[in-house]
Amino acid sequence: MSSDRIHAHYVIETSIGLERAAAAMAGEQSTGTFITLPGETPELHRRHAARVESVVLAEEGGEPSLSGSRGPGPVQRGEVELSFPLENVGTALPNLLATVAGNLFELQQLSGIRLTDLELPEAFGRAHPGPQFGAAGTREVADVRTGPIIGTIIKPSVGLTPEQTGVLAEDLARAGLDFIKDDELMADSPHSPFEERLDAVLRGLDRAAEVTGRRPLYAVNLSGDIDEMRRRADLVAERGGNCLMVSVNAVGIAGLRDLRLHSSLPIHAHRNGWGAMTRFPLLGYSYRVWQQLWRLAGADHLHVNGLRNKFWEPDDSVVASARAVLEPINGGPAAMPVFSSAQSAEQAADTYAAVGTDDLMYVCGGGIMAHPDGPAAGVRSIRQAWDAALAGIDLDTYAADHPDLEAALRTFRGATGG
Amino acid sequence: MSSDRIHAHYVIETSIGLERAAAAMAGEQSTGTFITLPGETPELHRRHAARVESVVLAEEGGEPSLSGSRGPGPVQRGEVELSFPLENVGTALPNLLATVAGNLFELQQLSGIRLTDLELPEAFGRAHPGPQFGAAGTREVADVRTGPIIGTIIKPSVGLTPEQTGVLAEDLARAGLDFIKDDELMADSPHSPFEERLDAVLRGLDRAAEVTGRRPLYAVNLSGDIDEMRRRADLVAERGGNCLMVSVNAVGIAGLRDLRLHSSLPIHAHRNGWGAMTRFPLLGYSYRVWQQLWRLAGADHLHVNGLRNKFWEPDDSVVASARAVLEPINGGPAAMPVFSSAQSAEQAADTYAAVGTDDLMYVCGGGIMAHPDGPAAGVRSIRQAWDAALAGIDLDTYAADHPDLEAALRTFRGATGG
Repeated sequence: MSSDRIHAHYVIETSIGLERAAAAMAGEQSTGTFITLPGETPELHRRHAARVESVVLAEEGGEPSLSGSRGPGPVQRGEVELSFPLENVGTALPNLLATVAGNLFELQQLSGIRLTDLELPEAFGRAHPGPQFGAAGTREVADVRTGPIIGTIIKPSVGLTPEQTGVLAEDLARAGLDFIKDDELMADSPHSPFEERLDAVLRGLDRAAEVTGRRPLYAVNLSGDIDEMRRRADLVAERGGNCLMVSVNAVGIAGLRDLRLHSSLPIHAHRNGWGAMTRFPLLGYSYRVWQQLWRLAGADHLHVNGLRNKFWEPDDSVVASARAVLEPINGGPAAMPVFSSAQSAEQAADTYAAVGTDDLMYVCGGGIMAHPDGPAAGVRSIRQAWDAALAGIDLDTYAADHPDLEAALRTFRGATGG
Repeated sequence: MSSDRIHAHYVIETSIGLERAAAAMAGEQSTGTFITLPGETPELHRRHAARVESVVLAEEGGEPSLSGSRGPGPVQRGEVELSFPLENVGTALPNLLATVAGNLFELQQLSGIRLTDLELPEAFGRAHPGPQFGAAGTREVADVRTGPIIGTIIKPSVGLTPEQTGVLAEDLARAGLDFIKDDELMADSPHSPFEERLDAVLRGLDRAAEVTGRRPLYAVNLSGDIDEMRRRADLVAERGGNCLMVSVNAVGIAGLRDLRLHSSLPIHAHRNGWGAMTRFPLLGYSYRVWQQLWRLAGADHLHVNGLRNKFWEPDDSVVASARAVLEPINGGPAAMPVFSSAQSAEQAADTYAAVGTDDLMYVCGGGIMAHPDGPAAGVRSIRQAWDAALAGIDLDTYAADHPDLEAALRTFRGATGG
């Protein structure tokens, strides 16, 4: 790849012919507008125009996927690669987005447009902080050398007072969890103010540590305004916290990067809101692209959903997301994929088989807390499931002499209709 | 509306029955998870659960719009209103989004989900800065007492050096424009560094003002990282600039609010990237909701596209967006809708007829710069078109003795196939 051009890959749908549509995309996002202007010299075009690198027809026929498009021809779907001079854009992520995405989604020439991949010049890796911890650094902070980092979410998501949350966190830490996170619905509310909850949970974790000898990672949800997040990141470090959680889509990529620059702790990136940007297959962004931006901005852990989840997403999409997160990119390290959403002992073996590594966070809510023998048995059931997976032993065989696992499988198999 | 609850309106599609789907949405976004937990007491439910306020069936039948949903029944589409206790959420906009949007887009129970409207407790108006200028304040800064604020975009979008941009800005100011903006593709690039461009344009506008006696608003695109945007906002004010432009989706709502708190100038909100969040009708957000969030965060001017635009959007959607922007809300003033995208003299009368006010920005790129008699004639043609519209005179009648308008209509009618 040329080191001074940004390459962007798209799936598009059009009725004006793929080549013409690709040319329209390149024009809109660099030197063109709807009518030829006096300032558009050949020299300016040569140096600054976006370039159509390739166009590949995939299929033809059917109805347009999105309304409002125009064109005389049959509906064509295919892949387009454009490249843009770095010189046009610079390295700021908001301006990268304005160029490779921006108005493209609104073009009349397209009845489908999805940004699927992005290859960036090395300058981006130098310009952005990237993950401060990544997968390897998170293992160190969490003191989990092998196996997945097993976590849970504070539930119910809303309604617990800070004190109740602290007591619950203590119980969860005593149950042997490596990682505890706030729900994305819980950040700073009149009912559970940020600082009170932080302090109550840290006290709870200290009480548990007196018994267990270790303290899990606690990802406290500090999502909010920019100054609030800066203050909170400082506060968490001062009080001895060890992880930050943020709703990345809501604070924005610029907000995430700002947090990264003001923090000395791992950043747990919650992707709520992501569905709106990806669920229609011919619109928006692939997870591959989006996680790359979050990682440049500084995310250490990235939610990827989970196998047989409670959401809409098929397993192959989840697995592709996890692999993208595990791929070192832009000079930065592998990040930690976070498996979550209706996870229990039940999905461990299949997750390991699909991803091929235990460098991941495996986060269970009900899958631990609703274990018939309590949360401690729930945590043990997850560890047993992963021990079996890593040893290549069939789950049911292993469950035969591991009652916690056996009870988990009995309880959770089919709980989400998976 | 109850003052302590957040009300959110959705259009949804489901195959499990609208009532059940609405209950699943309320559970997911407040007290529930996929299995009943020990901590879910009746008292906690009573106080903290989201409430289904109404469910209205609109139609039944057909195929699911989005894949990955499950359900035994026929496909139903309808409207759902949920309410959430303010106590669960607080007033930070990222946390509001996590609650009223967030994971909802991913629910397996839904094959379509769009957030269409939002009614917020008064606490939101108090907690957020809102527009610093709005429509009325912008008129004062621009010194345009009546009629639309007529603007243009620096084009070509990329490729001009700062000096060339400054000379072009001078020409545009001499041509009589009220407002000049950077393209969203141009913020801070190796080819056109922010500060150099700012200075060159302000010098160009000063040169023009020596002749014309006035200086137009110049919305300089300062999109970038948080600290960069703060420094740039200060710099613009120091150097005598009068307007800031930002790509709001890319810097995020938290980033926009941060800019608002650090700026003493009107904020011109460019919505590039918006298409990905709205173009599929059963996914994402309505503009009505999104502009409300941007206004709470502090946007003064909001892009609404334009009639017979070069994009996919139908005119009725554009008009609804403009009306939403003009509606005072959350204790804040009306903001300025920005009409843009293939606009020329040709759409003025229809725009006025549809919106019923001239409190708007009317931004033409090619529609001014590609006028056959030059940009000055282009600007005059827009003013003449609006004079005709405001006086209730037919456009062609008025054009008969206004040659600039006549030439514009001859050039631009049908240019976008509208």
